[in-house]
Amino acid sequence: MNAPSAPSYPVDGMNRVKRRHDRGAYDHETVHGLLDAAVLCHVSYVIDGQPYCTPTLFWREGTRLYWHGSSASRMLRNQSDGQPACLAVTHLDSLVLARCGFNHSADYRSVMAFGHAWLVADPEEKRRALVMMVDRFFPDRTAGLRQTTEQETKATAVVVMEIERASAKIRAKGVADDDEDYALPIYAERLPVHMVIGAPEPCPRLVPDIERPASLTPYREGRRLDDAVSEAYSTTYKVDEGVIG
Amino acid sequence: MNAPSAPSYPVDGMNRVKRRHDRGAYDHETVHGLLDAAVLCHVSYVIDGQPYCTPTLFWREGTRLYWHGSSASRMLRNQSDGQPACLAVTHLDSLVLARCGFNHSADYRSVMAFGHAWLVADPEEKRRALVMMVDRFFPDRTAGLRQTTEQETKATAVVVMEIERASAKIRAKGVADDDEDYALPIYAERLPVHMVIGAPEPCPRLVPDIERPASLTPYREGRRLDDAVSEAYSTTYKVDEGVIG
Repeated sequence: MNAPSAPSYPVDGMNRVKRRHDRGAYDHETVHGLLDAAVLCHVSYVIDGQPYCTPTLFWREGTRLYWHGSSASRMLRNQSDGQPACLAVTHLDSLVLARCGFNHSADYRSVMAFGHAWLVADPEEKRRALVMMVDRFFPDRTAGLRQTTEQETKATAVVVMEIERASAKIRAKGVADDDEDYALPIYAERLPVHMVIGAPEPCPRLVPDIERPASLTPYREGRRLDDAVSEAYSTTYKVDEGVIG
Repeated sequence: MNAPSAPSYPVDGMNRVKRRHDRGAYDHETVHGLLDAAVLCHVSYVIDGQPYCTPTLFWREGTRLYWHGSSASRMLRNQSDGQPACLAVTHLDSLVLARCGFNHSADYRSVMAFGHAWLVADPEEKRRALVMMVDRFFPDRTAGLRQTTEQETKATAVVVMEIERASAKIRAKGVADDDEDYALPIYAERLPVHMVIGAPEPCPRLVPDIERPASLTPYREGRRLDDAVSEAYSTTYKVDEGVIG
């Protein structure tokens, strides 16, 4: 898929795709593309030996991942000194109905990213991150919003993690039965599933004559969410592999 | 939502919803309903202090959760002696564009379930679980499939976790701005998103005259996946709060 010289994450026992290793990839282009198409991730972290798995909004800058939550949250209190974390993103693309139970499966595109998570402490960096948290999804939106107050900035914690290792895992082959099973009189199918955007619901309390801004046009009814989110990302970060990659 | 006597999971520091605690619920009906509407979960576990977050298919029986993977997988090797685990399910329902950055949000329905995960060792219980892994999504499908071989059964590991603690967290309020911000000339909306079923793609190698079975009718193009998955679950387990709940 990529030339051998394409930038890639290092591979070791932590992130090597062991089961179905033919489905694994480690290059920045594949890993970053799957991250940038997502709104939601799940972050895993450990407190006193107990694993926690928390869903949250996130975004990427270069080889850094950002996510957020209240300063009150259990996870963030414990990440202030650099906690090992694993952030996962999964796009489910289909359910696969095969001719035997064993070959039932799903098509998916997933990423696991490993690193150490830190609270963003520097006030300037935090203010910048809070802007990107919105603008990453909705290009240039923050400039037209009511300004964020000091209290709001204090009440929001931003976490940053440099990606130390990462792997992508992709299955995209639909029905894959054993050769001898194709002759059987059994129905089999690939059932596609997608995150799809519905009809936007304008706030019922809008003041008169407020139109939906043109910057929201990537988010139109019936479109796949991963496509819209990728497009918004490219607009905001003006993606150039040499700069943001 | 439920009478005070409705069955609930115990609450302590591990699963109490701390941030936005008004969004939390612990009763079986809410927690199980969100689990049974999902195909995919993320499971967190710990190896040598390092958290891992793995996406996988899963399903519920009573207060037990099952998921699967190859015996070769890192996660399962380490869960054979009862590993603490956290399984999370998240349904993303909308993106919320508010009049300030701080009130940008998302509507979602999520569950975190905590317990100890074990490999299913008993061969009979494992065979039964492998049937339910398919039939939970596609009622009665296994009966019509090519039988599972001994080798396939051996190659599949099934993990079971009794839910010791669980919490649901739900946000379903769309735009919620500060009172004084509603007067501002700023566009705000709730942008609904859903997992939607696409057009089924029959295997191109079907033998002649094989029709799509009636048992797959819950999975029709354009329908929400969570609705179809919930319906299939109810059909398979003939849900009765007194039996499976």
